[in-house]
Amino acid sequence: MNQTSWELHCPVAVNNDSPRVMLAHGEGGRMMRKLIRETIVDILSSESLAEMDDAARLPAIDGPLAMTTDSFVVSPLFFPGGDIGSLCVYGTVNDLAVSGAKPLYLTLSLILEEGLPIAVLQEVLQSVARAANQTGIKIVAGDTKVVPRGAADGLFINTTGIGELVDPVPPGPQALCEGDELIVTGPVGRHGIAVLCAREELALQPAPTSDCGSLVAATMQLRHRLGTRLRTMRDATRGGVGAVLHEWSESSGLTLAVNEKDIPVSPDVRGASELLGLDPIHIANEGTMLIAVESGASEDALEALRSLPETQYSAKIGTAITRQATPVTITRMFGRPQPLDQPQGAPQPRIC
Amino acid sequence: MNQTSWELHCPVAVNNDSPRVMLAHGEGGRMMRKLIRETIVDILSSESLAEMDDAARLPAIDGPLAMTTDSFVVSPLFFPGGDIGSLCVYGTVNDLAVSGAKPLYLTLSLILEEGLPIAVLQEVLQSVARAANQTGIKIVAGDTKVVPRGAADGLFINTTGIGELVDPVPPGPQALCEGDELIVTGPVGRHGIAVLCAREELALQPAPTSDCGSLVAATMQLRHRLGTRLRTMRDATRGGVGAVLHEWSESSGLTLAVNEKDIPVSPDVRGASELLGLDPIHIANEGTMLIAVESGASEDALEALRSLPETQYSAKIGTAITRQATPVTITRMFGRPQPLDQPQGAPQPRIC
Repeated sequence: MNQTSWELHCPVAVNNDSPRVMLAHGEGGRMMRKLIRETIVDILSSESLAEMDDAARLPAIDGPLAMTTDSFVVSPLFFPGGDIGSLCVYGTVNDLAVSGAKPLYLTLSLILEEGLPIAVLQEVLQSVARAANQTGIKIVAGDTKVVPRGAADGLFINTTGIGELVDPVPPGPQALCEGDELIVTGPVGRHGIAVLCAREELALQPAPTSDCGSLVAATMQLRHRLGTRLRTMRDATRGGVGAVLHEWSESSGLTLAVNEKDIPVSPDVRGASELLGLDPIHIANEGTMLIAVESGASEDALEALRSLPETQYSAKIGTAITRQATPVTITRMFGRPQPLDQPQGAPQPRIC
Repeated sequence: MNQTSWELHCPVAVNNDSPRVMLAHGEGGRMMRKLIRETIVDILSSESLAEMDDAARLPAIDGPLAMTTDSFVVSPLFFPGGDIGSLCVYGTVNDLAVSGAKPLYLTLSLILEEGLPIAVLQEVLQSVARAANQTGIKIVAGDTKVVPRGAADGLFINTTGIGELVDPVPPGPQALCEGDELIVTGPVGRHGIAVLCAREELALQPAPTSDCGSLVAATMQLRHRLGTRLRTMRDATRGGVGAVLHEWSESSGLTLAVNEKDIPVSPDVRGASELLGLDPIHIANEGTMLIAVESGASEDALEALRSLPETQYSAKIGTAITRQATPVTITRMFGRPQPLDQPQGAPQPRIC
């Protein structure tokens, strides 16, 4: 060992300006710090991230909290109406909003596959920044991991959010009563169909577009208008409106009865669903929720929802009734209520 | 469409008891709910998770918060001294503890590769439950995604934690002063070497063991004993003690001078490092931290740390001095301070 040992480096790549993600970008050295500082923090313009501490320090929050986490593995990363960046923000923000919370803080954790173009990462982060800005949530902490080529599929993102529960918090699906009215806030199945058509390159014209978007304004509007007449809200993501109906039936012990003709479905989703043999009620949404309101409150709820562009096609789709032989019934075209099955899984993986 | 349409199902597998993870386990249907309920919630025995709401509702927290996130992509999933389950809990809990917070709540988000044996998932979750129990953090929310075979490497986990900042919060590395003393709380490089040897099947005897463990007790002990004489703490994960020294030098504008002979290295790590041509100062730890204390406070700090089994080999390794030409110096065997380089990346990916 002598003075020239200063000049020796570990045998890793020294190309600081590679246009693609390299393993060294994830290993705690100079390249990781450069990527975080010059790409991630810069695009997200977050003060907490810029400090690069182990944990973000946040001011006290008045009152009880809501906390939720989601990992996003959507394929492809970009689809009509959104991308993994907007999706990961709206997904977590919506979970907070429908729980009765004002979204406050978000963490963003990236798992990058070696070889991912830095330009793709930048585009996704710009989309994250726009969505965070629009919903008023602050990105306060992050993490970046890189896995070797073949060990992940481009880019996975985890977002975890906390929010402040604002009185009156809707009591939740176990509080559902007979006669409660069920409303869906827009045409169903748009996200799942958009991702599926993009992935399979079905080239339908016009291409189905995801509903990927924020439910913050809609939940605030509803809560303001209905107060304690609002029982519960849930964004109808994986498993679609059908899965939410089954969960609420299980929680409340009631049967939920819906009418197929009242459920809004956009023409592009209807066309693609028929082509693919899918029922839009089981297809994922990312900016559309199911809500339950006290008997008689649906007119007020619909008026409040229809005043916002993102929920202008809201519709009452059914009612909670005494428990029947089946948890969820749907009245299809021939006018008799039939059981609505709960699929084992779903025919379209990786939609979020 | 007629009555027998009740009997039709979506064309997905109906084997509810597959010994491996299937795509349908991630799709919001009955299989996902069964997996979550009977495997995940049962093992983690979490009340919040059992409610399966969109977000956990948590009581108010007095005072300011700390929030941190980490994704874990370690390969292999099991290694001497730990596994991805214990690692993902200790990693996030330690980030909270060194920031001056009492760890309170944790979210757990799983990305599973199709084909992962359910038994492996169960073993990992049992390890998560033990570590959460030991550190007193509550798992309050979760998420499960499944990606097709080949699109991820077995199992990735994200944990995000929040904690309550407890006065006095250590001011952080920008508060470092000349004369401040640097202490490392145990032998360095154990985690990185253990994972590397396990991955490459080096079959060294005895196999190097990770230091993967909780720093909650050590940080509480130190804070109790030192009060405002404690400047800052940081668990020396990716990039090892070397990376923390560089970050602190950058934050404080001082040079940090350490002595190689004072840095504890276990015999197994020393042997493996020499064999592999690595310097333990750059190798990751997962239960060992660097701390900086006011001049003269290191004796008290060491006494406090040595009273705990997990930090019994704590040692003073250096001092903060006036800024020199180089940010970090190390005095190696020939007695002259040399610059300690900051690697671009690191020679061992996927150690956490």
